[in-house]
Amino acid sequence: MKAKASSGEGRFAYEGLDRVIHEHARLSILTCLITNPKPLTFGDLKQLCSLTDGNLSRHLTVLEEAKMVQIVKGHDRNRPQTVCKITPSGRKRYLEYLSTLEQVVKDAAKVSKDESESTLLRSLTPSEA
Amino acid sequence: MKAKASSGEGRFAYEGLDRVIHEHARLSILTCLITNPKPLTFGDLKQLCSLTDGNLSRHLTVLEEAKMVQIVKGHDRNRPQTVCKITPSGRKRYLEYLSTLEQVVKDAAKVSKDESESTLLRSLTPSEA
Repeated sequence: MKAKASSGEGRFAYEGLDRVIHEHARLSILTCLITNPKPLTFGDLKQLCSLTDGNLSRHLTVLEEAKMVQIVKGHDRNRPQTVCKITPSGRKRYLEYLSTLEQVVKDAAKVSKDESESTLLRSLTPSEA
Repeated sequence: MKAKASSGEGRFAYEGLDRVIHEHARLSILTCLITNPKPLTFGDLKQLCSLTDGNLSRHLTVLEEAKMVQIVKGHDRNRPQTVCKITPSGRKRYLEYLSTLEQVVKDAAKVSKDESESTLLRSLTPSEA
């Protein structure tokens, strides 16, 4: 029988990395919405996530179709204004995704810590050049 | 002058989320390689990341072209064996990516903590139904 690789089958599969959320722009949008207590305008989101109108629009549509965000078209002092907020199911799904993301960071953190320590050691050891 | 959104321009852009690394399968492969001290065989990687032969091959090619992994074809007891390892520049780039990923988790962590606390509070408060 072949010996199993060190940490077991699927140990690094990270199946909780929901594809709808994991895409870079959508991860920005959702993190921005979940951390801001009030709904955000299209303009605020665009600025906070550094997205173009087209990109923000496209990704908001994906998130709206997935029922993760709600887009409300209204008015502010007679000017049309679109506000976006995360839905309760979007919030739940984001938090599930987050627990997998935390696992990735946790898995890699030990290595990262070792690297910083060895960089520190190198900087403390006089060069033999 | 329009008031700025709460946390400043580009606050949630997460520009360090390197597209080569952020893709789900490649994030699995690289996290697996960086956390395992020895090079891994194609078979080990496939099993640990739950990827098909085709998918693993395709993503390893992307990572090899980006000079982030090195693929060495050799033999083990007269049988052909491919082993993969992360390169020093791949390791550096992964750790840079990781610091942005940690920022996402940190940004969202407060919300996540508040959610758990309010869930806990709800579970401790008798229902008025």
